Amino acid sequence: MTTITSELQAKGAAARQAARQLARLSTEVKNRALLAIAEALDARQEEILAANREDHQAAQVSGLSPAVVDRLLLNPERLSAVAKDVRTVALLPDPVGEVIDMRTLPNGLVAGRRRVPLGVIAAIYESRPNVTVDIASLCLKSGNACILRGGKEVIRSNTVLARVMREAVVAAGVPEGAVQLIENTDRALVGEMLKMRDVIDLVVPRGGGELVRFVAENARMPVLVGGIGVCHTYVDRAADIDMAVRVVHNAKCRRCSICNALDTLLVHADIAEAFLPAIARVWAEAGVEMRCDPRALRVLQEQGTRNKEQGTGNKEQGTRNKEQQGGLGSLKLVPCSDVDFDTEFLALVAAVRVVDSLDDALDHIERHGTGHSDAIISEDYSAARRFVDEVDTAVVYVNASTQFTDGAQFGLGAEIIDSTQKTIARGPVGLREITTYKWIVLGSGQTRP
Amino acid sequence: MTTITSELQAKGAAARQAARQLARLSTEVKNRALLAIAEALDARQEEILAANREDHQAAQVSGLSPAVVDRLLLNPERLSAVAKDVRTVALLPDPVGEVIDMRTLPNGLVAGRRRVPLGVIAAIYESRPNVTVDIASLCLKSGNACILRGGKEVIRSNTVLARVMREAVVAAGVPEGAVQLIENTDRALVGEMLKMRDVIDLVVPRGGGELVRFVAENARMPVLVGGIGVCHTYVDRAADIDMAVRVVHNAKCRRCSICNALDTLLVHADIAEAFLPAIARVWAEAGVEMRCDPRALRVLQEQGTRNKEQGTGNKEQGTRNKEQQGGLGSLKLVPCSDVDFDTEFLALVAAVRVVDSLDDALDHIERHGTGHSDAIISEDYSAARRFVDEVDTAVVYVNASTQFTDGAQFGLGAEIIDSTQKTIARGPVGLREITTYKWIVLGSGQTRP
Repeated sequence: MTTITSELQAKGAAARQAARQLARLSTEVKNRALLAIAEALDARQEEILAANREDHQAAQVSGLSPAVVDRLLLNPERLSAVAKDVRTVALLPDPVGEVIDMRTLPNGLVAGRRRVPLGVIAAIYESRPNVTVDIASLCLKSGNACILRGGKEVIRSNTVLARVMREAVVAAGVPEGAVQLIENTDRALVGEMLKMRDVIDLVVPRGGGELVRFVAENARMPVLVGGIGVCHTYVDRAADIDMAVRVVHNAKCRRCSICNALDTLLVHADIAEAFLPAIARVWAEAGVEMRCDPRALRVLQEQGTRNKEQGTGNKEQGTRNKEQQGGLGSLKLVPCSDVDFDTEFLALVAAVRVVDSLDDALDHIERHGTGHSDAIISEDYSAARRFVDEVDTAVVYVNASTQFTDGAQFGLGAEIIDSTQKTIARGPVGLREITTYKWIVLGSGQTRP
Repeated sequence: MTTITSELQAKGAAARQAARQLARLSTEVKNRALLAIAEALDARQEEILAANREDHQAAQVSGLSPAVVDRLLLNPERLSAVAKDVRTVALLPDPVGEVIDMRTLPNGLVAGRRRVPLGVIAAIYESRPNVTVDIASLCLKSGNACILRGGKEVIRSNTVLARVMREAVVAAGVPEGAVQLIENTDRALVGEMLKMRDVIDLVVPRGGGELVRFVAENARMPVLVGGIGVCHTYVDRAADIDMAVRVVHNAKCRRCSICNALDTLLVHADIAEAFLPAIARVWAEAGVEMRCDPRALRVLQEQGTRNKEQGTGNKEQGTRNKEQQGGLGSLKLVPCSDVDFDTEFLALVAAVRVVDSLDDALDHIERHGTGHSDAIISEDYSAARRFVDEVDTAVVYVNASTQFTDGAQFGLGAEIIDSTQKTIARGPVGLREITTYKWIVLGSGQTRP
C-alpha cells in the first residue's frame, strides 16, 4: 500500500504542478506539442510495436478472450490512425481563453466568465492502448494535466506510449508533468486514486459497466460517466414505414458494438403488422436476433404463417412469397426474457416490444432507458413534439438514427466520452466540456454598499 | 434504519414522479405557484410563527449558542422578507427551454441543446428556516423537485413551512411531490440520503465546513459545494493607497460574517510602510484584529513608535500625531499563528502578511486559497493581468472588493450558493446553473454512413 500511495502522490503532485503551467500555455505551444506527439508516434513505431507485441503475447498466453486480445493489439495501421487523430486534435479550436457573458455592470465593474482548464483529469480505462494517446492529447489541447491508469494487460505498451509522448511534449515546451502514467497495476490502486480529491479535479472511467459503476460510486471527486446506453427507437403509428425500416436498421446495424446502437425497438400496435415484418426481413438478412414480447412475436409468427399459406397461389406469386418467407424464415426470433429490456447488447440482438400508445412508449423509456440516445420515428407533429419534450435523455431524435450520437457528428470535433449524466456535460463531451470558467471582475476601486 | 429508509424512499419516489411533471410546466404555472407561496407565507404568518416559537423556546432551553438561537428565529419582518424573496424569484427569467447552439448540420439534421431541469435536487442545511423556502422556490422556478433536510432544531418551523408551500403550489397546478421535507431528524439519515444516486440528481450542502466536507466526501451523486472561502486581497507595490484602503476595508468590514469577506491581506514590501499604517488606522476604529506575520508586525510597531517619538514636536503636530497614534494605539495587533492563513474568520479578524513580489503573493494564494474570491489592488497593468491569468479561483478581482461575489450583484438574480468547485458551476450559482441540457436532433430519415 505504501508503494501504491507513494507513486500516486508523487505523480499527483507533479501533475498539479504541471497543471498550473499548462493553464497559461498558448494555443501555439500546445499545438506544437500535439504535432510533436504525432511525429514521435510515427517515428518511434518500432519501439512502440515491440512493447505492444510483448503485451499481445502475454495476453494470448494468459488466455484472455479473443476480443480483449484484439482490442489491445497495435499494428502500423492502427498506430498511424492514432497519430492522425492527434493531428486532428491539433486542428481543433482551443476552448481555453474564451470569454462568456462579459459586460459592464451598473456600478462600472466589468464582469464575465473566462474559460480555463479544469486542472488535473484522471482517466481509468481498460485494454485499448489508443485511449492513452487519445485522452492525453485531448487533455493537453484543453490545458489539463492528466493521470492515466490503463489496464494491466497493456502496461508495456502504455509505458512506452507515455514516455514517447512525454519526451515529445517537453521538446515542444510543455512541462513534463503534464502526462502521468501510473505504472503500478495493482487493483487496489484505483481505490486509492479515487480518494485524491485534492489532486484530481475530474475522473473519467472508460470501460465496461463494472468499472464505470465502481468509479461512480467510490470517487470522492467529480466523475464523468458515459459510454453505456440502452437506446430505444420508437416507431410511432404515424411513421413512414420505409423511413422507419431504414433508420431502425441503421441504428442497429451500422455498428452494433457501440453505445449509441439500438437496443430496444418499440412499435405502436397500429403499425406493428405493417412494420415488424418489413424490419424483420432486413434484419433476417443482417443476422439480427429479435427478442420479442408476446405481441411482437405473434405478429411475426402470424406473418410467417400467412406467407406460407399464400405460397400455394400462382407461380409468380409463389416465388415472391418464397423470397419474403425466405427472409423471415432465416430470422432469429426468440421470446424476450425479463432482462432484455434492460440490456445493452453491443451485438446483433434487439429487444422488441409492441406498445399501445405514445404514453406507453414514454413510460417504457422512462423505466428502462439509461439516458443515452432515444428516437421516435413519426410524421405526427404533436407526437414528435411530445417525445422531444418528455424523454429525459442526453440525445433525443426525431426521424434519425441514434448512431449519430458522437462529438464529431455534432460538430464538437473530438469526443472524450458520451456522457449519460446530467451534470458537468450531457451527451457527446468535447474539449469545451472538460474545461471550467472563472469569473473576472475588473474594477476601478468599487466597494459594495 | 427501516423507518429512515422508508420515509426517504417514499419521498424520493414522489419527488422523482413530480420532477417528470415539473419539467413540462409552463413558466406561467411556475410563477403562479411562486406567488401563491408568497401569499400563503403572508396569510399564514401566525401558524408559521407559532411553530417557530416552539423551536425557539426548545433551542433556548437546550442551551444552543445565542448565534444559533438567533439564526433560527422568525418574526413578522423576517417572514415578510422571505415572502418578498419568493416574489423576486417569480420575476426572474425562466432558464428552462432556452436553446443553445442550434444549427443545421451538413446532412440536414437540425441539432442543438435545450436547457431542461436537472430533476431532483436535495438540500442539506442547518438552522435557518428561510433556507427551506429559499431552496424550494429556486428549485420550483428551475423546474426541479426538491428534497429538503434542515436542522433538527427547526423541524417544527420547517414542517409548517413545507406544508404551507405544498398547499400553495398544488392550488396553482404544481404536483404536490415537488416539495419534499424529510421530517425524521435522525443524523444517520443524511448518510442514507447520500446513497440515493438513482433518486437525487444533485445534492447541495448549505452550512458549516464540517457538514460540507461530510457531504462532499460521502455523496454518491454530484455535489455542489461552496459558501466557504479563505479570501485574499493583495495590495501590489503599484497600488493606489487611498483606493487600497477603501477596497480592503470594504472587503473586510462591510459584512465580516459572509464567505466573500477578506480573510488574508497580502502587502508588497515596497508599499507596506505606506499602506499598513493607513489600513491599520481604519481597522483600529472598526475594531478589526490584525494577525500579522513578523514583517507586518515590525512595520506597524515601528510606525507606532515613530508616532510616539514625533509626538514631542510642536503642539499642532502633537495633536495630529496623537490622533494617529490614538488610532494605532487602540489597534488589536497580534502575531499570527500557523493556522491563521488557512482560516475563514467570519469575524473582525484579518491575517496580514508582507510579501516580496507578485510571485510570492501568487504562491501564497495557491497554497492557502480555497478558490472563492481573491483580489489584487494595483495600477500596474502587467501585474493585474498576471494576477487575473494565474490565480485559480472562482472570482478574481482587480481593484474591487471581494464582497461583490454574489449572484444578484453579477446579474444572475437569485443565488443558490457560491460554488468553490470547478465542475457544474463556479462562483455564484443562479437558476441556470441548476439546470442541464438535452441534445435535440430533428431529422428527415437520416442514417449514418
